[in-house]
Amino acid sequence: MKKNILVIPGDGIGPEVTTWGKAILEQIAEDFGHEFTFDEALMGHAAIEATGSPLPDETLEKAKQSDAILFGAVGHALYDNDPSLKVRPEQGLLKIRKELGLYANLRPILLFDELLNASSIKPSILKGTDILFFRELTGDVYFGEKTLSEDRNTASDLMIYHRYEIERIAHKAFQAAMQRNKRLCSVDKANVLESSRLWRATVQAIAKEYPEVETEHMFIDNAAMQLIKDPKRFDVVLTANLFGDILTDEASQIAGSMGMLASASIGDGTGFFEPIHGSAHDITGKDLANPLASILSVALMLEIGFGLKEEAKTVVAAVDKVLKEGFRTNDIADGTTNPYKVLGTKEMGKLVLK
Amino acid sequence: MKKNILVIPGDGIGPEVTTWGKAILEQIAEDFGHEFTFDEALMGHAAIEATGSPLPDETLEKAKQSDAILFGAVGHALYDNDPSLKVRPEQGLLKIRKELGLYANLRPILLFDELLNASSIKPSILKGTDILFFRELTGDVYFGEKTLSEDRNTASDLMIYHRYEIERIAHKAFQAAMQRNKRLCSVDKANVLESSRLWRATVQAIAKEYPEVETEHMFIDNAAMQLIKDPKRFDVVLTANLFGDILTDEASQIAGSMGMLASASIGDGTGFFEPIHGSAHDITGKDLANPLASILSVALMLEIGFGLKEEAKTVVAAVDKVLKEGFRTNDIADGTTNPYKVLGTKEMGKLVLK
Ligand SMILES: CC(C)[C@H](C(=O)O)[C@@H](O)C(=O)O
Ligand SMILES: CC(C)[C@H](C(=O)O)[C@@H](O)C(=O)O
Repeated sequence: MKKNILVIPGDGIGPEVTTWGKAILEQIAEDFGHEFTFDEALMGHAAIEATGSPLPDETLEKAKQSDAILFGAVGHALYDNDPSLKVRPEQGLLKIRKELGLYANLRPILLFDELLNASSIKPSILKGTDILFFRELTGDVYFGEKTLSEDRNTASDLMIYHRYEIERIAHKAFQAAMQRNKRLCSVDKANVLESSRLWRATVQAIAKEYPEVETEHMFIDNAAMQLIKDPKRFDVVLTANLFGDILTDEASQIAGSMGMLASASIGDGTGFFEPIHGSAHDITGKDLANPLASILSVALMLEIGFGLKEEAKTVVAAVDKVLKEGFRTNDIADGTTNPYKVLGTKEMGKLVLK
Repeated sequence: MKKNILVIPGDGIGPEVTTWGKAILEQIAEDFGHEFTFDEALMGHAAIEATGSPLPDETLEKAKQSDAILFGAVGHALYDNDPSLKVRPEQGLLKIRKELGLYANLRPILLFDELLNASSIKPSILKGTDILFFRELTGDVYFGEKTLSEDRNTASDLMIYHRYEIERIAHKAFQAAMQRNKRLCSVDKANVLESSRLWRATVQAIAKEYPEVETEHMFIDNAAMQLIKDPKRFDVVLTANLFGDILTDEASQIAGSMGMLASASIGDGTGFFEPIHGSAHDITGKDLANPLASILSVALMLEIGFGLKEEAKTVVAAVDKVLKEGFRTNDIADGTTNPYKVLGTKEMGKLVLK
């Protein structure tokens, strides 16, 4: 298979981790006889520094031409500390999601048995958890009109949904539920928000087309609680952009660490694959970042992007093997880990590669 | 001390639990020689049934006249299942918050040592946690303009903040931090939302007036994760209405159960005291609800509403004693609880009363 992959390392630990995602892709190509060609492009703070724009036209052009995108992270303390800056790294990520029509963000909560103890949640609560989040990615308060009054005393963001936006991701989520345990939980705040009431009514209507799927509706506040109280009760979770952002970060504690979670953004065209973690400026350049989320993003690219199931399995199995052998990065080392087996980004990347 | 208290039982388990909150108030009045007089009023589904309005004028009038309000919960499955209903129980709660100017919602995460094992989170992670949430309660996407297009295909809610709304609650939160461990974490989504950027800039400015307080700013997604990864890192948490709704429900797992958390809403006038749990229609009328959140709301009323510290301590001590003796309601019973000590709402209420 011939594929043309764009790597966008981005900011912070982005470059450190995508290096290993890319290396894994090269290895897979060699082992399975595929031809993967790579290009690279700028986004985020790195792009602002170089071109003034968080998403240069060139990056967007390359992205549209490619068969899949491997992305790292964007963000920088500079902007976090100064809310008045007008040009911001995250705008690049939001714009590329919108421009590529990446309306469905799939975030599987993959739980490796070896990491059961790395979580702050009790192993007995976690064991057997297997959740697939569908987070809507191109609507909601992320993309509604923003205002800042002239006196800078009032600011607003419009939380807005159109029925078709809810329908298309709902279909994807129900279809996934049919392939899994046939349970779907839609999360909203319909007791307060008009946009959530549209969300709920739309999902209720679509649920009728999937009578085999047991559908439930839950308020976001309750879901944030249930997710850690009894994660096993969830199979597919369908939710809006903002609620999905919050719930999936929270769910990273189920998998032991944010450093373990990968995501696939799909929609109208090219797929976009990225860890759910951010740029993590506090550990940037220290060889401390966990490359496994990037490596697992590659597994999602192979499976969802290219339909290469065997290849994807090989990658997940390699990660599993390294964990079984007792190797850990800092974020997933628990009190019982042999200190000699706690590795930096590079060593961990190399081990999985082998 | 003479006080005139309005009881609003509301819907679902609201009446079952406020009965015990009220009984505790009567006992405290007797023991400490106070004169508490009580009135009762309707809100939510109960009020819609009786009057057509979720917040009848009479209730609002009584609320304004009273010295404090003890509230239960509102909500009903009827409305949750039918997003198209125009008159809804929650409107009553939102309106009374707005009308009474209850802009600051204090939600202490009080952790009883006896309940360390009732949580899904490891006791070692929880031990020593002591968080006080300040949730803004009369602004945000809760109160911004709502629209539904005529074809019912587009719906929106305006997420909006004014500087003064952020300032007044920030001052309250910083003042509380000064009385506690002098750490404050402000939670927002300033990397995406304009209203969050105003939030962050305003809190940054006010932080300068409290140089002794160590202030940090965190994104909501990260906060949802940190809260269960390392709850001890938080002291005072200051956040907007929607984010506070989500984070405090999540935080209920720290305290073992939603059935343990009380809240105080304060602002321009009469204080409003309520459990953070909802109407819980699934267990309504089954004598299963935990009355402790209502009883602990009474402790907050005594302390924050009336300045009666001794009386408040007596209530908390009574709860602690009953827990120490091994008694539990269903929600806080863990695997090791003696089954004979698992009580219903009434027995638990009576025990604390004694
Ligand atoms: C960086 C930020 C804009 C982004 C988001 O909020 O969507 C991130 O948190 C994510 O989850 O992908
Ligand atoms: C019932 C609902 C409107 C309310 C809210 O969202 O504020 C509740 O969840 C709360 O936390 O007090």
